[in-house]
Amino acid sequence: MLQNTIKSRVIGVEISLHRTTYAIVDLRGNVLVKESFNTSDYPNINDYVSALSERIVAFVDANGGYDTIRSIGISAPSGNFRTGCIENSPNMPWKGIVPLAAMLRDRLGLAVALGNNAHVRALGEHTFGIAHGMKNFVVVTMGHGVGSCLFSNGKTHEGYHGFGGEVGHTCIVPDGRLCGCGNRGCLEAYTSAQGIVQTAKEVLAESDAPSRMRTLEKLGSRQIADLCNEGDEMAIEVFRRTGYYLGWALANYASIVNPQAFILTGGVQRAGNWLLEPTRKSFDEHVFLNIKGKVEILLSSLDASERDVLGASVLAWKVREYSLFK
Amino acid sequence: MLQNTIKSRVIGVEISLHRTTYAIVDLRGNVLVKESFNTSDYPNINDYVSALSERIVAFVDANGGYDTIRSIGISAPSGNFRTGCIENSPNMPWKGIVPLAAMLRDRLGLAVALGNNAHVRALGEHTFGIAHGMKNFVVVTMGHGVGSCLFSNGKTHEGYHGFGGEVGHTCIVPDGRLCGCGNRGCLEAYTSAQGIVQTAKEVLAESDAPSRMRTLEKLGSRQIADLCNEGDEMAIEVFRRTGYYLGWALANYASIVNPQAFILTGGVQRAGNWLLEPTRKSFDEHVFLNIKGKVEILLSSLDASERDVLGASVLAWKVREYSLFK
Repeated sequence: MLQNTIKSRVIGVEISLHRTTYAIVDLRGNVLVKESFNTSDYPNINDYVSALSERIVAFVDANGGYDTIRSIGISAPSGNFRTGCIENSPNMPWKGIVPLAAMLRDRLGLAVALGNNAHVRALGEHTFGIAHGMKNFVVVTMGHGVGSCLFSNGKTHEGYHGFGGEVGHTCIVPDGRLCGCGNRGCLEAYTSAQGIVQTAKEVLAESDAPSRMRTLEKLGSRQIADLCNEGDEMAIEVFRRTGYYLGWALANYASIVNPQAFILTGGVQRAGNWLLEPTRKSFDEHVFLNIKGKVEILLSSLDASERDVLGASVLAWKVREYSLFK
Repeated sequence: MLQNTIKSRVIGVEISLHRTTYAIVDLRGNVLVKESFNTSDYPNINDYVSALSERIVAFVDANGGYDTIRSIGISAPSGNFRTGCIENSPNMPWKGIVPLAAMLRDRLGLAVALGNNAHVRALGEHTFGIAHGMKNFVVVTMGHGVGSCLFSNGKTHEGYHGFGGEVGHTCIVPDGRLCGCGNRGCLEAYTSAQGIVQTAKEVLAESDAPSRMRTLEKLGSRQIADLCNEGDEMAIEVFRRTGYYLGWALANYASIVNPQAFILTGGVQRAGNWLLEPTRKSFDEHVFLNIKGKVEILLSSLDASERDVLGASVLAWKVREYSLFK
């Protein structure tokens, strides 16, 4: 007898340096059930794929069964949607070209699409977030790295080799700070979590003024953002400088692609207006005349604990468009 | 009796600071007949539109008649294809917002589409030039100004307000040269025809070394390019510096949009490899790791005397897509 099933759900997977999270998501973007484990427990990629597959099988069995699942979408650092591979990630433990989508497809027998974090977040913002209805916009992801994804005429712009959006590696300070990519003066060296901490150290070294930053056990971008809200002048100065660099890079970005809005997402959202205001100021100082004051710079409205699996679920629904397994 | 006519031809119009050229072009890109007059003879926009309309009417009457003409496409500085207007052109004599497409449509009774030079040249390169078959590429126009047009997923990316592509106004030198737009350090201030001359003056002032540039009656970018071919070391140095800035700005552009190729078009083509080689070197020094060595930097293959009316003819064929008079 033919079973009449409606494949009304997908699996969204978020892979980050530390955690891997997978969730069953329905068509409306309801995250029905979610689990996670430590990515860093599996420095060998084969072990990682085995663990992820086994967990997903058990997870799906316990939550409605395989017949309800249409496909899988994955958000991964340095993921290339054209190849379904994680390619030369500077941060992940798996080096070189990792054909993760193909490996998971072979284990699970489901269609798998894979994209990088920025690409996947942009899909999430476009379908369920603040960019809903926009056709030309940019999502900027800010955390360990700084990436972005451009929507052009209502579609993600991936570029010819699939590496579009690397705003973090636009050079903004000639002969500036050394970036993880090997170049100097990249935006990422100034506005990633680590870049913000480096700016804080510079600010602290420039004067003897008092700041709670001097007494923190761990000086991280999150702590610095929290100190802004307590009125710590030097912490505020750190985000003033961060905003200056970010606004400048986004102005160059906007002069080239003239988006309706930039949507900032990631750890730095915590700094809120302490980051947004200097960013907007620097943006307007550097941007092309005809769009000055016209491009919005916004914070993501999606729940940080769900945005990546949500975005990955959108990718899963578009598996025919994005996957190499058509 | 119903007249059975095939509207198999369009009119392509190129408006530049000095000259206005209009041509009848067929579907295959053959420029059948072409005329031009001095733009600068008409500082008043109403006089200009009267002159252009009357000339086009006489021109068409003498060359096959109105019934063979489907539509008009216009290439104009600071043209906005969304509005059909020339908007706040810093160089043209007509200030503010000039609704040129609507004015011509009302005079001539033909559908009119208007775009900016870079946009129109990109259409020409895509249909008839070196970018034929490419889906993700950038055309960079270099002359009095420096502009560009991005093709994303096979379509021109205009941006939300229609001002995409202004790479000339990306800031690459903090507190650098004053640009015509009012900002400092824009690419255009270094790589426009005038910017190149300014670099030449700086190079000459730095030493007493001999150079034919010192004895030229008129020091223009064209003359400097010609001196490169004669082996003038200081002229070569001028394009070395120009290429350094251009390569840097294109690297930032490529890190963001990852095109298959950049196609350079305009007066600087004359410098050929004297410009291309330092541009490619600087590009590879500044571009994101994963696309280093992968993005081509090419010169346009279209005849300089025809490329703009050819591009405008492509715009004319797409009038339903690009015109506001659908």
